[in-house]
Amino acid sequence: MSVEATAPGKAILFGEHSVVYRGPAIVIAIDRRAKITAKERDDEIIRFDCLDLGFEGYFEGDEYHPVAGEEWRGNRLQAMLVAARKTMEHLDKHSGLDLTVRSEIPIAAGLGSSAAICVATVAATGELLDGNLSLQEICDLAYEGEKVVHGTPSGVDNNISTYGGVLSYETGVGIERIDFQGGLPLVIGNSRRKRSTRRLVARVRLLRDRNPELVDGLIDSMGEVSRKGLEAIKARDYPMIGDLMNINHGLLSSVGVSIARLDILVHAARGAGAYGAKLTGAGGGGCMIAITDPDKLKEVSRAISHSRGEPHIVNISYEGVETRRLD
Amino acid sequence: MSVEATAPGKAILFGEHSVVYRGPAIVIAIDRRAKITAKERDDEIIRFDCLDLGFEGYFEGDEYHPVAGEEWRGNRLQAMLVAARKTMEHLDKHSGLDLTVRSEIPIAAGLGSSAAICVATVAATGELLDGNLSLQEICDLAYEGEKVVHGTPSGVDNNISTYGGVLSYETGVGIERIDFQGGLPLVIGNSRRKRSTRRLVARVRLLRDRNPELVDGLIDSMGEVSRKGLEAIKARDYPMIGDLMNINHGLLSSVGVSIARLDILVHAARGAGAYGAKLTGAGGGGCMIAITDPDKLKEVSRAISHSRGEPHIVNISYEGVETRRLD
Repeated sequence: MSVEATAPGKAILFGEHSVVYRGPAIVIAIDRRAKITAKERDDEIIRFDCLDLGFEGYFEGDEYHPVAGEEWRGNRLQAMLVAARKTMEHLDKHSGLDLTVRSEIPIAAGLGSSAAICVATVAATGELLDGNLSLQEICDLAYEGEKVVHGTPSGVDNNISTYGGVLSYETGVGIERIDFQGGLPLVIGNSRRKRSTRRLVARVRLLRDRNPELVDGLIDSMGEVSRKGLEAIKARDYPMIGDLMNINHGLLSSVGVSIARLDILVHAARGAGAYGAKLTGAGGGGCMIAITDPDKLKEVSRAISHSRGEPHIVNISYEGVETRRLD
Repeated sequence: MSVEATAPGKAILFGEHSVVYRGPAIVIAIDRRAKITAKERDDEIIRFDCLDLGFEGYFEGDEYHPVAGEEWRGNRLQAMLVAARKTMEHLDKHSGLDLTVRSEIPIAAGLGSSAAICVATVAATGELLDGNLSLQEICDLAYEGEKVVHGTPSGVDNNISTYGGVLSYETGVGIERIDFQGGLPLVIGNSRRKRSTRRLVARVRLLRDRNPELVDGLIDSMGEVSRKGLEAIKARDYPMIGDLMNINHGLLSSVGVSIARLDILVHAARGAGAYGAKLTGAGGGGCMIAITDPDKLKEVSRAISHSRGEPHIVNISYEGVETRRLD
């Protein structure tokens, strides 16, 4: 028997970076999904087919054996490996696994690809071993995998990927699921530059160390943008969401996390008639996101493409992790 | 006899746009000058040779007669015409004039070209008619010319162009000359896009009308940047000036006055090792300015050039308006 599980990626609409200090971040699940197919093996090997990403290999104990691609690729599989093993421990059922990874979510672009893959891995493994895992168990086990890669992540990515929809997250307050069922006409533009969240968070911290009151003022403004952004989303006020995205992009630039390629895509989207646009995620590369009238989605997408970005017309996804048995 | 007068252009280091509401703007004279040569005529004609800009023509009363170039060019000469006539009225001496205009200051780029030309016109006309004008008289008469073009300008441009150096300006407080005698290693990058200050000021006002508290917070942050900027200039703390320029650029982006061409030049300068860079002036086109180590001036200048900007290595000019008789 084999099982397939899919889980959505995410995008941050407001509050990246400021959320490290205070104020909410507003995060949505997007209709781009990671898909894991899991199959039992009669040995103890955990094998990964990531041929979309150009590699394949297996773990025997903790040792990675590449079949296609370089040996360092094994490092990229640690989160999934841990997620699968923690799931088996949790269920107290153990098996070798064949895991096939396919994803529509750009990787290392701030769109939660890694969490979506972890969530889907847990869900597929759990279903395969007949675990009847609850959504919250899936979410928590995926977090164990995420920790391997990200240290102590906020828990936002595995949460949104498990449940879908919209959430607000605030340090010290936690995750709040937002009761909103509408869509938003969004275009994401991938700069195709990879970035390191850790390096960018450190950069903001250094700037703040040098200019504490000033940067705290910027962080407060970003928090205010997030709060107003959430109101504007609930009111489906696209022009206001656009204004707030534009303001937020400037504030993120002011703390030093934008780059020329992102600014170019942001201006291209605005020039094509988007209500507003901003970088999304840690910056330093990765993606920008624009909100537009539904009838301008293609125009904005084309403008991003003409400026050498990779456009994705996306919407909020209310489908969290989903699992089905294949045979 | 003929007389030559020169006056410097200016650059805003901090506080453009926010100064419209509150908080200081910090402005320097730059070592790029406008030069006016004036000669008496024995008729009542005022003739302008602006062949550097591709036109030439004369006024008989209020009527413009083009000699080379289009008729609408006469509109661009109104400020100089008024400056020259107000000077003659003030001295109660009247004459026809041949005025030759040459300038190293890019026009319509936010570098105070128009004020420098007005100041030099007044100084040249005054000297020619043996007026012994004081600096303050020159400054005030040039303001009369500026008013024709700009409505009710702040008075900053004619002031800095008359006196040189560094000044701080705040609405309701006025102009304060700053006691600073050092240089600053600066590179200006001209985007070669013309812009309209009036349109950009109106754009910020509209955004503020829609989001009053939020935009007021951004304006307060810009005011704070200006105040800290002045301290950093006095301390010759280049890295801090750079930090503050970077923050200020983001804040200006957040109120919607940057464009892709300016962002590209700003990132190019930073990428070449500048401590910081920002747009200078109204935005929407015009120029950016970067502060750098003195030994990186050329590198930053080259990077701006490679990104299709027009670089100018500049420094603070302490030479305000200067006049000399030619024969």
